[in-house]
Amino acid sequence: MRLEVHFTPHGIAPGELKGIPVIVVDVLRAATSIAAALAAGAKAIYPAATTEDALRLKRDLGGEDVLLAGERRTLPVPGFDLGNSPREMTPERVGGRRMVLATTNGTPAIARAAGGASVLIGAAVNFSAVVAAARDLLMHERRLAIVCAGRDGRFAAEDGYAAGRLVLALKHRRRNVEFDDGALAAAAVAERWGKDWLAVLERSEAGAVLRAAGMEEDVGAAALQDAHAVVPRMVEGVIR
Amino acid sequence: MRLEVHFTPHGIAPGELKGIPVIVVDVLRAATSIAAALAAGAKAIYPAATTEDALRLKRDLGGEDVLLAGERRTLPVPGFDLGNSPREMTPERVGGRRMVLATTNGTPAIARAAGGASVLIGAAVNFSAVVAAARDLLMHERRLAIVCAGRDGRFAAEDGYAAGRLVLALKHRRRNVEFDDGALAAAAVAERWGKDWLAVLERSEAGAVLRAAGMEEDVGAAALQDAHAVVPRMVEGVIR
Repeated sequence: MRLEVHFTPHGIAPGELKGIPVIVVDVLRAATSIAAALAAGAKAIYPAATTEDALRLKRDLGGEDVLLAGERRTLPVPGFDLGNSPREMTPERVGGRRMVLATTNGTPAIARAAGGASVLIGAAVNFSAVVAAARDLLMHERRLAIVCAGRDGRFAAEDGYAAGRLVLALKHRRRNVEFDDGALAAAAVAERWGKDWLAVLERSEAGAVLRAAGMEEDVGAAALQDAHAVVPRMVEGVIR
Repeated sequence: MRLEVHFTPHGIAPGELKGIPVIVVDVLRAATSIAAALAAGAKAIYPAATTEDALRLKRDLGGEDVLLAGERRTLPVPGFDLGNSPREMTPERVGGRRMVLATTNGTPAIARAAGGASVLIGAAVNFSAVVAAARDLLMHERRLAIVCAGRDGRFAAEDGYAAGRLVLALKHRRRNVEFDDGALAAAAVAERWGKDWLAVLERSEAGAVLRAAGMEEDVGAAALQDAHAVVPRMVEGVIR
């Protein structure tokens, strides 16, 4: 079995992950917000690569129940119903509704992973649920790719660390696992940094950006391991 | 002072490193071969991003002393004088001559770093010399970027590790160093993997590719820390 970690989606060739199970990781904040929204009863989430795509998707979907959510460079998008904060994903606001979500790094990463046999969305808040789902997948798959959203085509500490935590959790149950260079390095990072999500998130560049934007509570919310027992799964462009 | 590590050159925007000192790392094999060639007396090395650029450069340079060297997907390029093996860089073959070098990942990374205030080329074989040169730079610079060549836009273990070794060597002498996410992770990887270059190189994907191509002696040659006391430095597109 081969386990690979992509620190950004930018090195992935179109179609490269076709037929391969994928876990997309974006701890700050898209994956955390998606998990929170589904846990709060959102019916479906439509990831959009850009703000323009989000507007088009909402129009195509029609229906009064469709919320527009997302951010551009951390900040809420003018005219959108919601930002990209997990704290906004309450049953009152998103319960029973569909949501189109456009973020700077997370939803483009999900779009790149589209075509995978299974596309799961992982963060700290649903860590154990994703590990369990990945173990099930690995019963009959030969390869699993973990795709970090990263930041603007570069390594993001919180995503690389989360990928490493996943690698460590998955490797303990398997023999003869082959690791790519990214998986080896992610595991080393997770071993070195220990188990404290909050410390890693607070030290990360994304954490600093959120703090500077007055959203440090989002960092705390994203660090709550296993807050939600959901595994967001994308099928034909829709996350449920 | 800010120390940053780019695991691939692909996330670097054009002009982003303008005026900033840069260390380009490509342990397997371009940086190792460049250091070996200069140590063997090569007069100048002209990095080319592609095979076609290399042919054009040689034509433009004219002169009987210009060697064509490089690889495409690990293998020597038909019609070129030399491959990209550090073992080919002997005084007999490259001494006193100029060399145009085109490699799959290394020389494109150097091209991306062009425009930096100083562009140094680093590998294991000239590790201590590069650390010393970087320390000099840091006496009067506020920022230093380490750019890994990586593999096809993805993380390469041997380059990420080398970047981490550089971060660890540089941080011990400085207070108030600010690290980007890449520098933090690279340092964690180097701390976790220890000081054995050969073990890291042999376990890497690039190492496996070289072994499969019958070039495992290049892996051993690239792991010889401080074999050469040279610091290749690029000025206006020429490495000396």
